[in-house]
Amino acid sequence: MAIVVQKYGGSSMATAEHVKAVAERVKKAHESGLSLVVAVSAMGKTTDRLLALAAEVSREPSPREIDQLLATGEEQSVALLAMALHDRGVAATSLTGPQAGMRITGRYGSGVISEIRPERIHKLLDEEQVVIVAGFQGMNDLGDVMTLGRGGTDTTAVALAATLEADRCEIYTDVDGVYTADPRIVPKAHRIPLISPSEMAEMSWRGARVMHPRAVELGALYDVEIHVRSSFNDNPGTIIRKDDDLERLETSETVAGIVHDLDVSRVTLTGIRTGPGTMSRVFTPLAKSGISVDVIVESAPKEGSSDVAFTVKRADFAKAWRLASEVARSLGGEVEGEEDLGKVSVVGTGMLNRPGYAASMFDALGRAGIPIRMVSTSEIQVTCVIPAENVEEAVRRLHKYFELEERDV
Amino acid sequence: MAIVVQKYGGSSMATAEHVKAVAERVKKAHESGLSLVVAVSAMGKTTDRLLALAAEVSREPSPREIDQLLATGEEQSVALLAMALHDRGVAATSLTGPQAGMRITGRYGSGVISEIRPERIHKLLDEEQVVIVAGFQGMNDLGDVMTLGRGGTDTTAVALAATLEADRCEIYTDVDGVYTADPRIVPKAHRIPLISPSEMAEMSWRGARVMHPRAVELGALYDVEIHVRSSFNDNPGTIIRKDDDLERLETSETVAGIVHDLDVSRVTLTGIRTGPGTMSRVFTPLAKSGISVDVIVESAPKEGSSDVAFTVKRADFAKAWRLASEVARSLGGEVEGEEDLGKVSVVGTGMLNRPGYAASMFDALGRAGIPIRMVSTSEIQVTCVIPAENVEEAVRRLHKYFELEERDV
Repeated sequence: MAIVVQKYGGSSMATAEHVKAVAERVKKAHESGLSLVVAVSAMGKTTDRLLALAAEVSREPSPREIDQLLATGEEQSVALLAMALHDRGVAATSLTGPQAGMRITGRYGSGVISEIRPERIHKLLDEEQVVIVAGFQGMNDLGDVMTLGRGGTDTTAVALAATLEADRCEIYTDVDGVYTADPRIVPKAHRIPLISPSEMAEMSWRGARVMHPRAVELGALYDVEIHVRSSFNDNPGTIIRKDDDLERLETSETVAGIVHDLDVSRVTLTGIRTGPGTMSRVFTPLAKSGISVDVIVESAPKEGSSDVAFTVKRADFAKAWRLASEVARSLGGEVEGEEDLGKVSVVGTGMLNRPGYAASMFDALGRAGIPIRMVSTSEIQVTCVIPAENVEEAVRRLHKYFELEERDV
Repeated sequence: MAIVVQKYGGSSMATAEHVKAVAERVKKAHESGLSLVVAVSAMGKTTDRLLALAAEVSREPSPREIDQLLATGEEQSVALLAMALHDRGVAATSLTGPQAGMRITGRYGSGVISEIRPERIHKLLDEEQVVIVAGFQGMNDLGDVMTLGRGGTDTTAVALAATLEADRCEIYTDVDGVYTADPRIVPKAHRIPLISPSEMAEMSWRGARVMHPRAVELGALYDVEIHVRSSFNDNPGTIIRKDDDLERLETSETVAGIVHDLDVSRVTLTGIRTGPGTMSRVFTPLAKSGISVDVIVESAPKEGSSDVAFTVKRADFAKAWRLASEVARSLGGEVEGEEDLGKVSVVGTGMLNRPGYAASMFDALGRAGIPIRMVSTSEIQVTCVIPAENVEEAVRRLHKYFELEERDV
């Protein structure tokens, strides 16, 4: 019997009514003859509420205890969904991450799945039960619960699909799929019916909130077909798949979509002495403090000194500034920065063999009078860091410039 | 180093502020040089909130899923308390029931501790860490979390104290200890400084809310000295201990206290045919439905028929009535009952060798014009079921009648 893994996020599980709606959806899939494994997140704002409690009792909660605390959110969700299914006459069993055989390694708060031991899941599927697995968590070698970090339930679902050799992994969320741009900003944006894993991963990393990029990459690695769909309707959604059809799509369509991110700050070290090891001296303190750096630009050195700029999330701005100041001082330089920035990216595998997309992008932004602070490119995307206040305008301009609104769906 | 087990209930952990206050208390005990194991309950109304959620998603939630759900309440508490201790510079580790080696057998929702494997606790104590254990839960043979039923954290704490051969088990609650009667009803009631386990167990079963009776019995079985104290002050509390001093106390003091319970309903089967197996036919359906029956009275049979009366909690009244009706009809009888009853009990080991206490109790209630519906006696207590509206008056009368207010403390 075909195995399908479904994932329901926090917004799909926000209240008891939502849980019952998810149960109806799972029941329908179960009755259609599928073997179902369902990965769920904590209900709505549960994780935020638990983090607020932790902040109330401790200035610097230990990562292990944070993980013990947060794991309970998903454990509540799985039990409630199992109950709602029982109420509808569907045999179902809830499993915590450890019970489901999810083994995790790495650091508390940002664990990595090392292995899934699926014996218990297979046994329950053989009994025609729906298996409900707590997302975002597993057991480490000490026997403790450890979490995968935020967005981790996507990863749980895709890893389950890979291990169980599932037909597909269905990611249910609060939007209809992946769009050419955020429809709240660009009314003419349209759903992308089929997208390649590499484009999807780039779009996720660059700001599309629909799916966690780590999960997309894991899916690509293990050839898992992923369907992104709304948990509130029966619209077709977006399929993430690497195949022949897609190859054709990729050559005909050059730009897949425009994504943006409003959570960007920039820190620049100016006039620092450069030499071997300079970059390491700048970025090691940030890494040790757990600050993720996104775009990095180093200017060409003049007379032995240069500028190094990088972006971080707004929440890390003050800390990054402080760390960068110390390094800059020791290297004879200074620090400046901007807190309220955003970035806008043009993503598409079709860009791979067609140079000039960066230039086109700069042209479009320049015509609109939008200043570009930093640029970052890879094979299939171009990203510009711009003032936060210009981001919406930039997305609309680029969507039109690359003729995405005229594309036939 | 002396090991002490402390238990903090839901009211002691109600908010983040409460958790911090508990952390201060634990810190002080830790600094005094004790090896500390702390068992905690879920925060305040968490368990009720989770049960309400379960009722929203399912008409009849499965006991296994209820246990998976409820266990998360205590898991949150232990993580938060660990964080609050870290914040105060105290090394501490939180453990779920399964992580602490609590093995449980029996039925979901009413599990029984079968074994504690204390290796991990001992290892942490050797490192001079405070070990915080989730109360009310453990792991069954399937690897699932199972709960001990309500009030189970008392049992967790006493079982830990017995296994670890602790010096004592301290039960922190929202009252100063065990009183000769409820001080809200009898202003002259006073704290009992020392009480025997058998008296304490009877008082708990008969309505004293201060400690779970199963935990008291477990403590008696394994000779665990239990201190009941307030988590809000440093008052001395009540010591539950079996020893020479207490023997003397028992012979000099006859009545330890008056306890009451307002959650009582009565169902009576009248005029039913009696014979071998009648009682089993009446009570087996109740047991199968999970209804706990407290007092049972069977009248002497007249001409082959008799009356059987029993009490249940108010929440079970309607169901018990329905089940009793079916049995009564099949035995040629009828059913009647009263929903709003209470019971009042006089408890004391001193009563053991002194007959006449029941008569004295009836005398006191009779003088006050309080009707007695049912009577139940054991070696160390007499209980009368009376109308709920008369319970407070009865407690005051009996406290005075047995001269408890004049006792020297």
